[in-house]
Amino acid sequence: MGVCDMAEREYRCKVKVFDVTTGQNIVLLNKEQAVEEDIYISDRVIIKHGDVEVTCIVDLSNVLVKNDEIGVFQESAEKLGVKPGDEVIICHAQHPVSVDYIKKKMDGKELTAEEINTIIKEAVENRLSDVELASLMTTMYIRELSIDETVALTNAVVATGSQLNLNRHPILDKHCSGGVAGNRTTMVVVPIIAAAGLYIPKTSSRSITSASGTADTMEVLANVQFGIDEMKEIVYKHHGCIVWGGAINLATVDDKLIKIRHPLRLDPKGVLLASILGKKKSVGAEYVVIDIPVGRGSKIENVEDAKALAKDFINVGSRLGMHIECFISDGSDPIGEGIGPALECADVLKVLQNDGPTDLRDKSLQIAGELLELCGKVPKGAGFDMAADILRSGKAFEKMKGIIEAQGGDPKITPETLPIGTKRHEVIADKDGRVQHVDNRLINKIARAAGAPKDHGSGVLLHCEHGDKVTKGDILFEIIAEHESKLEFAVKSLETMNPIELERVIIGKFAGNGYFSKY
Amino acid sequence: MGVCDMAEREYRCKVKVFDVTTGQNIVLLNKEQAVEEDIYISDRVIIKHGDVEVTCIVDLSNVLVKNDEIGVFQESAEKLGVKPGDEVIICHAQHPVSVDYIKKKMDGKELTAEEINTIIKEAVENRLSDVELASLMTTMYIRELSIDETVALTNAVVATGSQLNLNRHPILDKHCSGGVAGNRTTMVVVPIIAAAGLYIPKTSSRSITSASGTADTMEVLANVQFGIDEMKEIVYKHHGCIVWGGAINLATVDDKLIKIRHPLRLDPKGVLLASILGKKKSVGAEYVVIDIPVGRGSKIENVEDAKALAKDFINVGSRLGMHIECFISDGSDPIGEGIGPALECADVLKVLQNDGPTDLRDKSLQIAGELLELCGKVPKGAGFDMAADILRSGKAFEKMKGIIEAQGGDPKITPETLPIGTKRHEVIADKDGRVQHVDNRLINKIARAAGAPKDHGSGVLLHCEHGDKVTKGDILFEIIAEHESKLEFAVKSLETMNPIELERVIIGKFAGNGYFSKY
Repeated sequence: MGVCDMAEREYRCKVKVFDVTTGQNIVLLNKEQAVEEDIYISDRVIIKHGDVEVTCIVDLSNVLVKNDEIGVFQESAEKLGVKPGDEVIICHAQHPVSVDYIKKKMDGKELTAEEINTIIKEAVENRLSDVELASLMTTMYIRELSIDETVALTNAVVATGSQLNLNRHPILDKHCSGGVAGNRTTMVVVPIIAAAGLYIPKTSSRSITSASGTADTMEVLANVQFGIDEMKEIVYKHHGCIVWGGAINLATVDDKLIKIRHPLRLDPKGVLLASILGKKKSVGAEYVVIDIPVGRGSKIENVEDAKALAKDFINVGSRLGMHIECFISDGSDPIGEGIGPALECADVLKVLQNDGPTDLRDKSLQIAGELLELCGKVPKGAGFDMAADILRSGKAFEKMKGIIEAQGGDPKITPETLPIGTKRHEVIADKDGRVQHVDNRLINKIARAAGAPKDHGSGVLLHCEHGDKVTKGDILFEIIAEHESKLEFAVKSLETMNPIELERVIIGKFAGNGYFSKY
Repeated sequence: MGVCDMAEREYRCKVKVFDVTTGQNIVLLNKEQAVEEDIYISDRVIIKHGDVEVTCIVDLSNVLVKNDEIGVFQESAEKLGVKPGDEVIICHAQHPVSVDYIKKKMDGKELTAEEINTIIKEAVENRLSDVELASLMTTMYIRELSIDETVALTNAVVATGSQLNLNRHPILDKHCSGGVAGNRTTMVVVPIIAAAGLYIPKTSSRSITSASGTADTMEVLANVQFGIDEMKEIVYKHHGCIVWGGAINLATVDDKLIKIRHPLRLDPKGVLLASILGKKKSVGAEYVVIDIPVGRGSKIENVEDAKALAKDFINVGSRLGMHIECFISDGSDPIGEGIGPALECADVLKVLQNDGPTDLRDKSLQIAGELLELCGKVPKGAGFDMAADILRSGKAFEKMKGIIEAQGGDPKITPETLPIGTKRHEVIADKDGRVQHVDNRLINKIARAAGAPKDHGSGVLLHCEHGDKVTKGDILFEIIAEHESKLEFAVKSLETMNPIELERVIIGKFAGNGYFSKY
């Protein structure tokens, strides 16, 4: 895997194995001995054991490893096939060639597809340190990837993971760029499309910072962790599924990049495009609708940015053989009433039974309708009506029950039998007014404080939405929790967070004495 | 030190201490428990123990730490004042504000002095992870710092370390941007300037990738590790010193940045300027001559880059109250004959005794002369002669003996009594020719393979220099080592490295049959 630096010496050490998960190949060397051998912290060494060679990043210790000992962390121990006491050879490693390519991009030059492939390959093989990956992400953020580079990155991402190879057509898919609480359209769109006889092998993500991801919400109704062959089985039988993408390993490199993106809070556009489109490509999607919510408190705050992103999705998608259409939707406020896994399930089941929040219903029908038109199932303009017919007929609900059962859940579940938390706290309007804003980010925080997504039954139940008139004493929302202590914690968080803003006609009074007083 | 994220819970763990030096505050949390608490790898947590709070980066393990245990690494354990078994409180931490400032710079906006101060302060307090520091370095490389930003960075760097506060004037200093093997002008310039009655409190660095740094070479003659008060003492008495900057702690933040610069091989100009000028500022330097070697195999390859760098040094220096002049010198070939600590000492001692390599002598006199003119000691044009007079008179040699003695060395040492290795290998010219190039990088590699700088007596002794005519059978250079095995290793490295290029008048023959044959 690595190339020893020819001008450097080798030395031998006995292995100590440490069960520490670092996400990189890290070895611990004795500090004094390392200095003797001209090896410094964060340097790269090649560890050889028999025919196996693994490039590792150096960490130093004085006590954990003694002279002639090497501490090998679990991941590297497995790769090397070593057990405690085995002898390994250590030699200086050259920098991986990716470091040169990252530098090239820093200097403003465009990378070739081959260079991008090499970077992704070396990242997947754990040959790049966190420091190098951080540098890569920063570079890709500042020096935006071109369309060519993004296409190459997407192909590289696809090549690192499994592929579904369904051999059926047409294959449809949807995606939402996220940030809107309660936005569970996937769980309405998938059964509609599948009920229309088209294929929609949907993989979804779990929450990172939100109250729930689609995979978390679906998990209340059924299992979501399946291997690629099981997923195929379900899709062949039911035309659709809603499973957790993380279990399928569609884009291995993604985990590595997310690890860096998360602490840096960086989402370079090229990486975002490649990560999303790579997963679509891996399931063989041919027609994809992407929902880009825009607005205050949403991930993307202005329409111009959303338009530019949409254009890139469409361009890169077309280069990858996918027909993509993008919705730019209003993302200022949550969708539906429940925020949190089981509460969101209640909204979804109600919509599938032709009840429930109209915003979730309408948005789902728009997306499903667009997909039906995009793949040519119905003429332009007839998609929404066909989707609405399928929903109204109960066929979508039947299909959802089939999928739930295929994924090991109970198809007889109803909104009433969902495991929703019993500890409740009502938040009351302290004045009259009109709801001007329901903050996605704060609602998510409160729902998380109450235990979501881990506690499936916890979250927030909204009693009002943007534009509603409320009277002092009305319930604005309820905090719902499985555990009393978490409920208390969430209630306490309200001291610093006000997720619902009420607009007042008179904001304040500027008095004759020169003082301004808030109403 | 940190701010807990208000919406997050706290939990308690018992401490296990691990003696691992990571250069960051890292804690090990039990993997399953961390997931329960919504904490992921690379997240930031605040550890509280009594009144002390330390922000740490999370690593995960299943076996090293059990449920309700936390692994604290040595550095953080000291800060927290915890011992094994102590209970600490863990809570989610907000991102340090520096992350926002780094992002601001990524987006192409200029940072204020206060923002730069905060970044450096948080870096010194170990509140920034390697990932964040890597992102910072990459950003400063791509989005070059303005002069204002560089001045602010230099001031921030100075504020993080100790300061000499000599209260004497004028204070002179020199610096070389490096890359040239054997370039030990400091050890000739310092005694000349000190003998002229001026102050030159010189701190030097150790080798990172070269065969020797000035601190390594001086260490053959005397101690180089002194605290700031000891350094002051020596300078008050002898007007000069040559000590290792790393022991003085003039710019604490530098170590952190070098740790990142090394693996990324990045040297953002603003960081380079701040690191060098920060150290000059910390010793109170008023007049500084900077040598910028340029040429093939040198750090800076073309004169235009060197000119731009010189201009920046002068501008930033003037904003910091320092008068700076820069030499752009020929850095294509090594200076002096010996490469490696003791071998370089031999050159220096010979020059101080009016013998030895003329290139080392002349360059040192030029730098010393420029310093004498810059501080107004002599009129423009008279510096070189004054420096040469001091050298010729033996006063510089006497001064050097005084400094060696003050730094705990033996002032009676001679080139003959230096501890030079006894294992030798001669490299012979295999053809006639003229020396066209002596490669700094390869000579350094061979000297390091032979044991330098750790083995003081090892290195390379050049028998020829650029422009020399050599005859087949002449000695080109000797490899010198303290240990036979390292000599063998260095000799073996010659199989892939040819550090001395001989030019031939006829390069090859293009024969009538269409074949080209090399001579």
